[in-house]
Amino acid sequence: MKQFINAKETLVTEAIDGTLRTAGGRLARLDGYPHIKVVVRTDWDRSKVAVISGGGSGHEPSHAGFVGRGMLTAAVCGEVFASPSVDAVLAGILAVTGKAGCLLIVKNYTGDRLNFGLAAERARAQGLKVEMVIVDDDIALPDLPQPRGVAGTLFVHKIAGALAEQGVELERVAEAARRIIKGAVSIGMSLDTCTIPGSPKEERIPAGKAELGLGIHGEPGVEQVAFSSAREAMQMVVERLEPAMGTGPHVALLNNLGSSTPLEMSVLAEALCQSRIGQQIRMLIGPAPMMTSLDMRGFSVSLLPLTEADQAALVAPVAPWAWPGCSSVGEIRVEPLPDGLTPIQAIPSENTETRVFLEHCCTILIDAEQDLNALDAKSGDGDTGSTLATAARALIKAMDKLPLADQTQLYRAIGLELSQTMGGSSGVLLAIFFAAAGDASASGMGPVDALKAGLERIQQVGGAQPGDRTMIDALAPALDALASGLPAAASAARNGADKTATITRAKAGRASYLAEDSLSGHNDPGAEAVARLFEALSG
Amino acid sequence: MKQFINAKETLVTEAIDGTLRTAGGRLARLDGYPHIKVVVRTDWDRSKVAVISGGGSGHEPSHAGFVGRGMLTAAVCGEVFASPSVDAVLAGILAVTGKAGCLLIVKNYTGDRLNFGLAAERARAQGLKVEMVIVDDDIALPDLPQPRGVAGTLFVHKIAGALAEQGVELERVAEAARRIIKGAVSIGMSLDTCTIPGSPKEERIPAGKAELGLGIHGEPGVEQVAFSSAREAMQMVVERLEPAMGTGPHVALLNNLGSSTPLEMSVLAEALCQSRIGQQIRMLIGPAPMMTSLDMRGFSVSLLPLTEADQAALVAPVAPWAWPGCSSVGEIRVEPLPDGLTPIQAIPSENTETRVFLEHCCTILIDAEQDLNALDAKSGDGDTGSTLATAARALIKAMDKLPLADQTQLYRAIGLELSQTMGGSSGVLLAIFFAAAGDASASGMGPVDALKAGLERIQQVGGAQPGDRTMIDALAPALDALASGLPAAASAARNGADKTATITRAKAGRASYLAEDSLSGHNDPGAEAVARLFEALSG
Repeated sequence: MKQFINAKETLVTEAIDGTLRTAGGRLARLDGYPHIKVVVRTDWDRSKVAVISGGGSGHEPSHAGFVGRGMLTAAVCGEVFASPSVDAVLAGILAVTGKAGCLLIVKNYTGDRLNFGLAAERARAQGLKVEMVIVDDDIALPDLPQPRGVAGTLFVHKIAGALAEQGVELERVAEAARRIIKGAVSIGMSLDTCTIPGSPKEERIPAGKAELGLGIHGEPGVEQVAFSSAREAMQMVVERLEPAMGTGPHVALLNNLGSSTPLEMSVLAEALCQSRIGQQIRMLIGPAPMMTSLDMRGFSVSLLPLTEADQAALVAPVAPWAWPGCSSVGEIRVEPLPDGLTPIQAIPSENTETRVFLEHCCTILIDAEQDLNALDAKSGDGDTGSTLATAARALIKAMDKLPLADQTQLYRAIGLELSQTMGGSSGVLLAIFFAAAGDASASGMGPVDALKAGLERIQQVGGAQPGDRTMIDALAPALDALASGLPAAASAARNGADKTATITRAKAGRASYLAEDSLSGHNDPGAEAVARLFEALSG
Repeated sequence: MKQFINAKETLVTEAIDGTLRTAGGRLARLDGYPHIKVVVRTDWDRSKVAVISGGGSGHEPSHAGFVGRGMLTAAVCGEVFASPSVDAVLAGILAVTGKAGCLLIVKNYTGDRLNFGLAAERARAQGLKVEMVIVDDDIALPDLPQPRGVAGTLFVHKIAGALAEQGVELERVAEAARRIIKGAVSIGMSLDTCTIPGSPKEERIPAGKAELGLGIHGEPGVEQVAFSSAREAMQMVVERLEPAMGTGPHVALLNNLGSSTPLEMSVLAEALCQSRIGQQIRMLIGPAPMMTSLDMRGFSVSLLPLTEADQAALVAPVAPWAWPGCSSVGEIRVEPLPDGLTPIQAIPSENTETRVFLEHCCTILIDAEQDLNALDAKSGDGDTGSTLATAARALIKAMDKLPLADQTQLYRAIGLELSQTMGGSSGVLLAIFFAAAGDASASGMGPVDALKAGLERIQQVGGAQPGDRTMIDALAPALDALASGLPAAASAARNGADKTATITRAKAGRASYLAEDSLSGHNDPGAEAVARLFEALSG
C-alpha cells in the first residue's frame, strides 16, 4: 500500500476528524459515525438559507473543505466515490435548515440524485423548504442526456453560498444556482488514473497518451489522445470547451485533479490564458485542487459566462482556506532590472610594491597547479590546482585595471574579479572573502584585520569551521600568526595544512560526502594551496 | 513524459508567468528572463524591512507563492532544484530594499548559501543593510553539522514577514528569525520519490517501505523503514522529533511534500494530534502543500516552541493564498443528531377497500416475479422481479400498520416502507414517487393527480424522461389515461411497455451502459411490471 491511511474502512471518518480538529473550532460533525458523516458550520444560526452539498469522498477539498462562512453550510460525505445514504443527507438537512429553507447542490450521479432526492422528500414531509439543483457541467460526452457533475460545481457552491450569506431568499438562491448550472461547462484531462484506497492502481494510460474527457472517479475518458506538451493539451481542452461556452467575458476555474504539481498547474494556467479563448477569460479561480479525483495527475477547466452580479459573488471573501479566491486575469507585470546590478569597476591606480606582491602570489599558485590537482584527485575531481591557476592567470591579466593604490577598493576588485573568473563554490567563497575584507577595510581596519573579517564571513556563509578539512584549516592559523611576520604565518599554515591529512571526516564541502579511507593521509588541497602560498611568500 | 510541461528549459519561467498573470496584479517579475527569475510585490514601498527568500524551484508554493503582504517581499527562483545565480539574488535585493534594509532567508544548501552570501556582500558594498539567516531545521541526520533547510523555513517566512509588515527594524527581525531557526525542527517521510522534469522517475522505494528523513530534492532518506499505516508512520516521525523538540506548547506545520492526497494529509493530521506529542501541539499550520518536492508522495512535520508573540505573528492575516493559516488544535466538536431523523410512523387506520386493492397490487407483482427476472436477465442482472416481489411481500406484511383510511398519510407510509424494504435505485425512486404523491395529496390533490405529481418528481430526481426505456414509459401514459378508467390505463401502459422493446439506446438507468443488441426486442422490465400491474387490475 503506497498510501498514508490506516484502513480504508476508517479512512473517511479519520480524515474528517483530522479536518475538524485542525479547523480552529470553525467546524463540527454530527454524531452519526460511521454511517452518517456530516460536517457543519459551528457559527450557523439557521436564519439564512442553508447551502448543502456532498457526495462520495475522494474529491477533497470538496466538499467538507468548503464548509464555512460564505460557502457551504454543511457537507454530507459518503465513502470514497460512494454516495452518502438518505439518512445522512436528511441528517445534514435537519441539522442546519431553519425557516429560510435549504438548497441541495447535487452532482449529476444517479446515487447522489436519488439519495439527496429522497432525503429532500423526507425533509419536505417535515415541513421544511427544500430546493435541489443538479449540476451537469461535464461536456466530455456531448450527446449524453445526463452529463456528469464535475468541477463546475464550485461555481454553484461559491455563488449560492455568497447569496445565502447575504440573506437572499431560497427561491432566488435556487434560481441563481440553476442559471449557473445552465451556463457552466467543464472538461478534464489526465496523464494518469487515480489510486483507489485498498485497490491496485489501474495502469490504463500508456506513455505518450492522455485521457480527455474523463470523470472524477477514475472512469475512463472519452478518448485517449496523443500527449506532447502542456500547451497542446490545453489546446485540446479549449477546442472542446469553445463550442459549448457562451459569448462575452467568462470566469474560468482551473482545477488540479490531484497530483499535478503546482509548477505544472501554473504552466497550464499560462497556456489557458494564452489560448484562443484566453481573451474571453477575465477572471480565474485557481489553479488549485478543488474537485479532485484522489491522486489523479490531471486537470480540468470549467467556464462560466461572467455577469457583474456573479463576479461580486465569486470574489466575496469566505472562511474556507481551500477556496483559492477569484482573481482578475491580466497582463504580466514586468519591472525593469534595478540599477547597481552591474558592479562598478574601480578606477585603476598604480602601486608597484602591491603589483609585484600580487603577481608573486599568482605565480606561486600557477606553479602549484599540477601538485594541487594531483592532491585533489585523491579526494575530489582533481581540479583544485587548475581552478586556482586559472583565476591567478586572469588576475595577472587584469592587473592594469586594478585599483592597486587603494586597499579597500583593491580587496573589492579582487573579489569581483575572482567571482567572474573562478568557477565553483571556492570561487564564490574567495569572492566573499575579499568583498568582506573590502567592507572591513572601508570601516578602517588594517589589511590583516580586514582579511580576518573576510575569513569570519566565509565561515558564516560557507559554514566551515577550523577542523572541517577545508582551506580554513591553513588560512585561519596563518592570519592569526601574520602579526609575527610571514615566516610565522607560513609555519602556521603548513602545520594547519598537514593536520588536515589526519581529519578523516570532512564536515563541509564536497569531501564531506566521501568515505574516511579516501581522505586519510592526504592534505586537503585548499589548505595545501594556502600553505604553499605563505611558504613561498616567506621563502 | 507524464507531466504537463512544454520543455524543462522554459518550465520555471512559464510557471512564474502563469502565477503572475493570475495573481490579480498583486505580483510582478523583474525583467531578467531567463537568468534572473525574481517575483516581487507590486504593493511595496521600501519603507519597511524587505524579506527575501528563494532557492531552487520545484518546492512550490515556496517561494513565489508566498510573496505578498505579511510574508515575502521578493522570491528569487532558480531552475528546478538549482540555486539562483548571484546576479539574480542581487537583483532581488536591489529591487525591494530601501533604507530599512533586508533580511535574506536561505535554506542550508551550499549553492544557496554561497550565492545569497555573495549577493549580500555586493549589496552591502552598495551601502545597503543586509542580514542573512540560514535555516537548518532538518533533524534527519542528528550528527550532521550542516542540517538541511526544509519546511521549517515557513515558520521564518511567516514570523519575519509579520514583524517586517509591522515595521519592526532589521536587527530585531533578524534576531527573531535566528531564534525561530534555533527552535525549529523538521523531518519528512515519503512513500515514493519525486519525478524530476525531463528525467525518468527513480523507483527507489520498494512496496511496503517508506523513506524516513529525506530531503526536498529527491535525495535518499536516512533510512528505509517498514510502512504499514499512517498512524505508525506518524509515530516514527514523532519519535525522531521528540528528543529534538523543546518543552511546553508547540506549533506544528504539517507539509504535503507533493502528491499525498488531502484525505491522507487529514488522516496524518489526526494521527499527529493523537500521537504522544499531540498534547503539546496547540496550533497547526496545514495540512497543506507548502514546501513541496515536486510530486513526492510524502509529508513532513515541523515543530516550533510557541510563544505568545510568535503566535500573534503566525495568525496575522497575509495576502498569499498558499498560506493555509495557523489554527488552534482542539477537541473534535460533535453535535447530536437532529430530531426527525427517524420517520414518524403514521397512526394505522382501516379501510377494507384500500386494503384489498393494495393486496391485489402486491399479489400481481409477486406472481410476475419469474417473468420479470427472466426479462431483466436479457439486459440487466435479472433481479427486477425479485426486487419488486420482495417489496410487495413486505408491504403485505406491513398492511396492519398502514394508515389505510388517510390518502396523504398512506402515500407517505408506502414510500417509507418501500425505502426500507426495496433495494437499489428503483426502491429509492418508488419511495420518492410515493412521498411526493403524499406531499401533493396534502396540498389537496386527488389520488391520480397526486400520483402524477410523484411521477414528475421522479423524472426530475431520476433524470429519466418518456422514451428513455424505463418504467416511466408505461407509467406516464397509464396515469394520463387513468381518468378514462382502468382498462384505458392498462392499454396505455401495455402500449408504452411494448414500445420500450424498440428503444435501443437507453438514456437513463443501468441499461444506458449496454450495447444496442442486448436491448432490442425486449421490453424494459420496469415498464413491463407497470403494464402487468394495470392489466391485472383492470382484468
